[in-house]
Amino acid sequence: MEGKEEDVRLGANKFSERQPIGTAAQSQDDKDYTEPPPTPLFEPSELTSWSFYRAGIAEFVATFIFLYISVLTVMGVVKEPTKCSTVGIQGIAWAFGGMIFALVYCTAGISGGHINLAVTFGLFLGRKLSLTRAIFYMVMQCLGAICGAGVVKGLMGKTRYGALGGGANSVARGYTKGDGLGAEIFGTFVLVYTVFSATDAKSSAIDSNVPILAPLPIGFAVFLVHLATIPTTGTGINPARSLGAAIIFNKDKGWDDHWIFWVGPMIGAALAALYHVVVIRAIPFKSK
Amino acid sequence: MEGKEEDVRLGANKFSERQPIGTAAQSQDDKDYTEPPPTPLFEPSELTSWSFYRAGIAEFVATFIFLYISVLTVMGVVKEPTKCSTVGIQGIAWAFGGMIFALVYCTAGISGGHINLAVTFGLFLGRKLSLTRAIFYMVMQCLGAICGAGVVKGLMGKTRYGALGGGANSVARGYTKGDGLGAEIFGTFVLVYTVFSATDAKSSAIDSNVPILAPLPIGFAVFLVHLATIPTTGTGINPARSLGAAIIFNKDKGWDDHWIFWVGPMIGAALAALYHVVVIRAIPFKSK
Amino acid sequence: MEGKEEDVRLGANKFSERQPIGTAAQSQDDKDYTEPPPTPLFEPSELTSWSFYRAGIAEFVATFIFLYISVLTVMGVVKEPTKCSTVGIQGIAWAFGGMIFALVYCTAGISGGHINLAVTFGLFLGRKLSLTRAIFYMVMQCLGAICGAGVVKGLMGKTRYGALGGGANSVARGYTKGDGLGAEIFGTFVLVYTVFSATDAKSSAIDSNVPILAPLPIGFAVFLVHLATIPTTGTGINPARSLGAAIIFNKDKGWDDHWIFWVGPMIGAALAALYHVVVIRAIPFKSK
Amino acid sequence: MEGKEEDVRLGANKFSERQPIGTAAQSQDDKDYTEPPPTPLFEPSELTSWSFYRAGIAEFVATFIFLYISVLTVMGVVKEPTKCSTVGIQGIAWAFGGMIFALVYCTAGISGGHINLAVTFGLFLGRKLSLTRAIFYMVMQCLGAICGAGVVKGLMGKTRYGALGGGANSVARGYTKGDGLGAEIFGTFVLVYTVFSATDAKSSAIDSNVPILAPLPIGFAVFLVHLATIPTTGTGINPARSLGAAIIFNKDKGWDDHWIFWVGPMIGAALAALYHVVVIRAIPFKSK
Repeated sequence: MEGKEEDVRLGANKFSERQPIGTAAQSQDDKDYTEPPPTPLFEPSELTSWSFYRAGIAEFVATFIFLYISVLTVMGVVKEPTKCSTVGIQGIAWAFGGMIFALVYCTAGISGGHINLAVTFGLFLGRKLSLTRAIFYMVMQCLGAICGAGVVKGLMGKTRYGALGGGANSVARGYTKGDGLGAEIFGTFVLVYTVFSATDAKSSAIDSNVPILAPLPIGFAVFLVHLATIPTTGTGINPARSLGAAIIFNKDKGWDDHWIFWVGPMIGAALAALYHVVVIRAIPFKSK
Repeated sequence: MEGKEEDVRLGANKFSERQPIGTAAQSQDDKDYTEPPPTPLFEPSELTSWSFYRAGIAEFVATFIFLYISVLTVMGVVKEPTKCSTVGIQGIAWAFGGMIFALVYCTAGISGGHINLAVTFGLFLGRKLSLTRAIFYMVMQCLGAICGAGVVKGLMGKTRYGALGGGANSVARGYTKGDGLGAEIFGTFVLVYTVFSATDAKSSAIDSNVPILAPLPIGFAVFLVHLATIPTTGTGINPARSLGAAIIFNKDKGWDDHWIFWVGPMIGAALAALYHVVVIRAIPFKSK
Repeated sequence: MEGKEEDVRLGANKFSERQPIGTAAQSQDDKDYTEPPPTPLFEPSELTSWSFYRAGIAEFVATFIFLYISVLTVMGVVKEPTKCSTVGIQGIAWAFGGMIFALVYCTAGISGGHINLAVTFGLFLGRKLSLTRAIFYMVMQCLGAICGAGVVKGLMGKTRYGALGGGANSVARGYTKGDGLGAEIFGTFVLVYTVFSATDAKSSAIDSNVPILAPLPIGFAVFLVHLATIPTTGTGINPARSLGAAIIFNKDKGWDDHWIFWVGPMIGAALAALYHVVVIRAIPFKSK
Repeated sequence: MEGKEEDVRLGANKFSERQPIGTAAQSQDDKDYTEPPPTPLFEPSELTSWSFYRAGIAEFVATFIFLYISVLTVMGVVKEPTKCSTVGIQGIAWAFGGMIFALVYCTAGISGGHINLAVTFGLFLGRKLSLTRAIFYMVMQCLGAICGAGVVKGLMGKTRYGALGGGANSVARGYTKGDGLGAEIFGTFVLVYTVFSATDAKSSAIDSNVPILAPLPIGFAVFLVHLATIPTTGTGINPARSLGAAIIFNKDKGWDDHWIFWVGPMIGAALAALYHVVVIRAIPFKSK
């Protein structure tokens, strides 16, 4: 319980914050932010622990499952000329968002449940994990994504997979590259904003049970960003997912806009980390 | 734990209430309403606290994200001649409801998670927050909504955004203005009723963990009202959302019915606050 | 904690049950059924308590909201010749199920959250509430349902409401009355089975937090029964809902099959209560 | 609390693992795996307990309800030439996944909530239940599935049921038997992986409330696998479900590929059990 922060005082008196929604307001006077200290950049000791490697394997397997289920769902929808006899575009959004919900739930206790390169990047910027661990996770996520998309290609057959677009991201006709980049920045901001907020020490200070539900809003954030931006870019907001699909698809169409699905998510994740540190945690303004 | 209320006695004996559903009935005899005292109208001290401004910024950002995702989803559906190749009207309802779920979850610990001018108004009438705070939230919500819709306009391009209706609310053909007003009143009643009930001190008295789930029924209420009234008014039930879309759309069609989306939600929220105070809390009948 | 039941002994030794799913198994040896004693048929004292009347009003308001939202959603779907530009049949199922989830959550602490005449009937048979309370709830539910459907009729206009079927239940072409009755029996069994199981003392014995989620599986049960039997009967599984729509619709088509939507749900609820008492609680076989 | 495992030491120092997501990291130093010892293969004593038979009956009833609702939903969708006027393929996926969510929730405290032969098989391999219990569950699941599909046949009429395919699984045109087998293996892996992860002792060690939500990710896993593989095999991932539909349908089309829906799920479940034991639990590498 060390590291209990003070509220930032703009004026003279420090007083307990009033929370306007119902019962949450009652007994929190002595519970404001209590947060663990920032993770050091390098933790040599973690390299000797099985739990470190187990976490990486868990990220690999989860990203593998994520791409397998979501890309296979995309294939099933794209395959049919009339979308009515498929699960539809909404079904695709459920596949991405629902899978993230289930997988974050399943791996939260093992690896922290990232399954997304931009989330790992954002949490690293927020100093929630070491550089060593961040790089290890990112590599495992990319490998998992490649394997997941590869299994779908094996199942669908090479020709059909290629003809159906392979689930690769690209900017849709009618939008500029700038539009696509913007959609990726805002979309990833929404996701990483949700990750930071849902797992925030403050939320758990109010009610120690709040983190239970955290995977649900995170999964919903992914679902909602897909609802909004599938018509624009197909929705990346996860460079590992975009890379996996692009490598297995491996056509010019998949590679031309590929930088957008790295630059956009990275910027969005950085903005979300910045918002969390500066506004919500107010770290730069702390008296101590 | 001060302020423990007595049950209203109509007759002579006070006895514990019996709750018919399952296990909740077992051990609640000593847990009826314990509610914090009403918030004073003005709390000068909160103006000197960073947490006050942080709450306003959180409302701004959340309403920004809310409009961005929901209006962009509306654009994607309206754009296509055949709705089968989009996420459909149901997808629009999910965008509004799901986003409220995630955002209430994310901001509950920071600002109370309103993200809706009518909710702030209703909770103010129920004396859950000060007038200062209510006005500050409302202003920030309107600014956030304007910016969110503005970013969608930037992404879609001015011409296309205008042609697609800009996500602005209006009464659909085949309905009178009275129908639209009624739909907004009942719809907002359902939402603010859910907000009051889900965050009620009584719910949490029965089981201290109940508030955990509160964002979920609130999000579902928004989803369900959209399912029901998108064909009538497009569903406002949030003056900030309607204002943001109307200002950015800025055509006669968007402004003609605009008063409905302020008057309706205000009346609905007031009725829900009245119901909560008079029937559920029974404050006017309290012996003390 | 009185009333702790013994496990039924078929043989000589009493031993702790082994629960095969994960962690639930660890520490439950001393937690089997602890259930409150059956509610007496008449409790004169409850008639003098405000909480009794408040519970009835809460059932009225909740059933009102339930019919308003669900029947209005049905109207919106039936109105359009092509279902693709509506929320679709699946959207109707969400309206019924989602609304039950939110309303059970909102009224659980006030009235027990029935909002369904068959649920009240089943819980009464399971001796979870008094006869007085059961009859009071049923009357309030029917009144609420009538008012809810009436408001929809007002909003849609009399002619249009009538032309669109008014959300009234009837057996679809291609099915016999026997099929319809069977569908109602099984559908209500599924719902009341879920209500008993989800709020069961045993569930909460294993983990005292389980009841938190209870409204969610109950809402899902309603959603799923609608997915399955909308094509057969439109899905009643709630005599109050069927009565409300039938009275406001008031055409022969709505009244001819109306008995099915009372007899079916009553039988289904009774079977679910029987299953719970005989198999799960094993009351007839208890040694004491 | 016996059986507290050590973390596997690859190097010299044992140190607490760092969990990168938010608050979960704070106080878990002394909480790593604590798991009950493996269940013995035969537990003669359980045969004399009513709770053993009750668990089997609960599995029968739950699998009955599962097949009834899901197959009836399939019938309703297949019956219509245009899927737009049905709940759609996505609605079918919800029926399977949502029903598993509700039923796992309802039976978790009675039988462990399997309702799936492959889940029982996987948990048996993971030594979570005795061989006696596993075989008893499997028999009851198959009987329940047969009865559930049989009631749907009775409701739909023999001719119509046969014409609509009876909800039986088979490999779709355009896919080889190998593709179907692969889809079943991966799909069942995803489901059983989720079952193991969501009910894992580690998850509950971090936050003792985590298991509350376990039925939700499990239900979502079923939903998502259906979204992805309905176009390929109709999605079995549950030999009891496939057997029930095949026996009641009883045509060559249903029997030809039937082995796939036993072999595939068994392999997938075994792989998931292996992954859990070797990677996550790291049992083979334990120092003790």
